[in-house]
Amino acid sequence: MERHVYFVSDGTAITTEVFGHALLSQFPVKFKQFTEPFVDNERQVSRVLDKISRSFITTGQRPLVFHTVVDTRLRALFDEGDGICYDILSTFVTPLEAQLGVKAEPKIGRSHGMMDDAYHHRIEAVNYAMANDDGAVTKYYSDADIILIGVSRCGKTPTSLYLALQYGIKAANYPFTEEDMDHLKLPSALKDHKHKLYGLVIDPDRLAQIRNERAPGTRYASLRQCRLETKEVELMFQKERIPYLNTTRHSVEEISAHILQDTGLERHKY
Amino acid sequence: MERHVYFVSDGTAITTEVFGHALLSQFPVKFKQFTEPFVDNERQVSRVLDKISRSFITTGQRPLVFHTVVDTRLRALFDEGDGICYDILSTFVTPLEAQLGVKAEPKIGRSHGMMDDAYHHRIEAVNYAMANDDGAVTKYYSDADIILIGVSRCGKTPTSLYLALQYGIKAANYPFTEEDMDHLKLPSALKDHKHKLYGLVIDPDRLAQIRNERAPGTRYASLRQCRLETKEVELMFQKERIPYLNTTRHSVEEISAHILQDTGLERHKY
Repeated sequence: MERHVYFVSDGTAITTEVFGHALLSQFPVKFKQFTEPFVDNERQVSRVLDKISRSFITTGQRPLVFHTVVDTRLRALFDEGDGICYDILSTFVTPLEAQLGVKAEPKIGRSHGMMDDAYHHRIEAVNYAMANDDGAVTKYYSDADIILIGVSRCGKTPTSLYLALQYGIKAANYPFTEEDMDHLKLPSALKDHKHKLYGLVIDPDRLAQIRNERAPGTRYASLRQCRLETKEVELMFQKERIPYLNTTRHSVEEISAHILQDTGLERHKY
Repeated sequence: MERHVYFVSDGTAITTEVFGHALLSQFPVKFKQFTEPFVDNERQVSRVLDKISRSFITTGQRPLVFHTVVDTRLRALFDEGDGICYDILSTFVTPLEAQLGVKAEPKIGRSHGMMDDAYHHRIEAVNYAMANDDGAVTKYYSDADIILIGVSRCGKTPTSLYLALQYGIKAANYPFTEEDMDHLKLPSALKDHKHKLYGLVIDPDRLAQIRNERAPGTRYASLRQCRLETKEVELMFQKERIPYLNTTRHSVEEISAHILQDTGLERHKY
C-alpha cells in the first residue's frame, strides 16, 4: 500500500510541494500525494484532518504531513491529528532568528503572492515570450534579455516560457528551418543582437523521435533531416562563437538553470 | 548592508531557492541572493566558497548558505567555509528514515530532471496551451483538461501556461471580446465542453489599468468598457453556473492553486 502524504499550507502550498517532493524523491518508496492549499481557518483544518484520518484507516499507516501553516493554533490542531507532522519552515526559523538578531514576522501566504515588482516583471515577460515566440516577429529583439535559437523542436519555446514565468526574464526564440540549411548563416535580425543569442542543440535521434510524435513519417521528422539540421546549426554556433547547450537529457528547469549560470542574467524573484 | 545569501545545489537549485525564499520572506531584513546550481565537484565548490569569502569580506557578515548538496565530502567543504550553512533536506532525512523504516538513497539532482512520465506530460501540456491560446482554435477542446474563459487581460494566458509547465495540465483559453458583449451568451464551441469551463473575472479598475499599459487611451482600455465587460461576463457565469474566480489580487500561482482545488484536477508532478 502506498504511503499517503499531505502537503498543507495556508497559501498556495507550492513551497511545501517542492520541498516535500525533493525530500521524498530520496526514498525508494511509492507515495500517494495530496496537496491542500489555503488551509487558513478551523473549518479548513477539520476538512483536511478528516481526509488524513480516512487515509490512516485506508492504509493502516499514519500519513506524512508536510506543512507551512503559520498560525500556531491551527498548527497545534494538526499535531493532534492522525498524521505525522513535519513543520518544514519553523525548524529553521529559530536558528535564523538567532543568526540575524531579529524576530521572524510570519505572514500567511507571503511566498507566492503578487505583492512585489518581481511579479509584474514575470507577467510582462510571459507576454513578451508569447509575442516573440518562434521567430514570428523579430522587431522587438532590442527588448529581449535573451534570444534562444536552434532547430525546430529542440526546446526553445518551453524554456522561454519557463524563464519568463519563474524568473521574469524576457526570452524571445527563433527557429532555423529546413530552408535555412543550405549555407546556414546568422540572419541579420539575429546578427544585430549577437550578444543576446543562446543556442540550443539536441541529439538527432532524440529530435527525430520528438518530431515523429507530431509529424510521423515526414521528411521533417526523418533521422536524415534531423542529422543534417543539428550538424549545420552546431557548426554555425561554433563558427560564430555563440554559447550553446545540448538539451537532449535536460528538463526545462535544468536548461534554464544552465542558461542563467552561463549568461549571468539576473533572476527577478517572486 | 544587505545580508548575502547563497542557494547552492548539485542540481538546478530550484528546491533550495523556493524553500530559502519562503523562509527568508518571514524576516524583515533585506537580503542579496545568489543562486549556484550544478555544484557537484570540488572545483565548483572552491569557486562558490571563494564567492562566499568575498561576500564575507565585503559585508562584514558571514553569508547564509542554504544547500541541498548530496555528496557528504562536498558538504563538509562548505561547513569549513565562511558561510553559515543550512542543509535543508538532511535535517528531515533522519526522522523520515525512522518513520519509513528504509534508508534514503540520495541521488544528485533528482528533483527537477526529466526522468519520469510527468515531464513528458508537462511539455505536451505546454505545446497544447500554446496551440490553444486566446480562442484562436477551438476544435481541440475535447483534449483539454480545462478551458479558462474571461475578458481580454484577466489572466487567462499566464495561468494556462503555469498549469501546463508546473502541473502538466492541458489548459485552453478563450476570450470574450467587445463584439460578444451585446446579449452575451456561451458560444457553441464552449457549450459542448461546459463541464471543463472555468471563469476568471477581474475588478474593472484593475482591468482598465492593465489594458491602459498596452493600449493607452483606447475605448478597449476605458473604465466604462471594462465595467461593461466584467459585469456582463460575471452575470453570464452566474446564469450558466460556471465556477469562477476573481483574479484581481491573486498571482498566477494562487489562481492555479485555487483552480486545482475547485476542480480537483490531478497534478502531474515533476
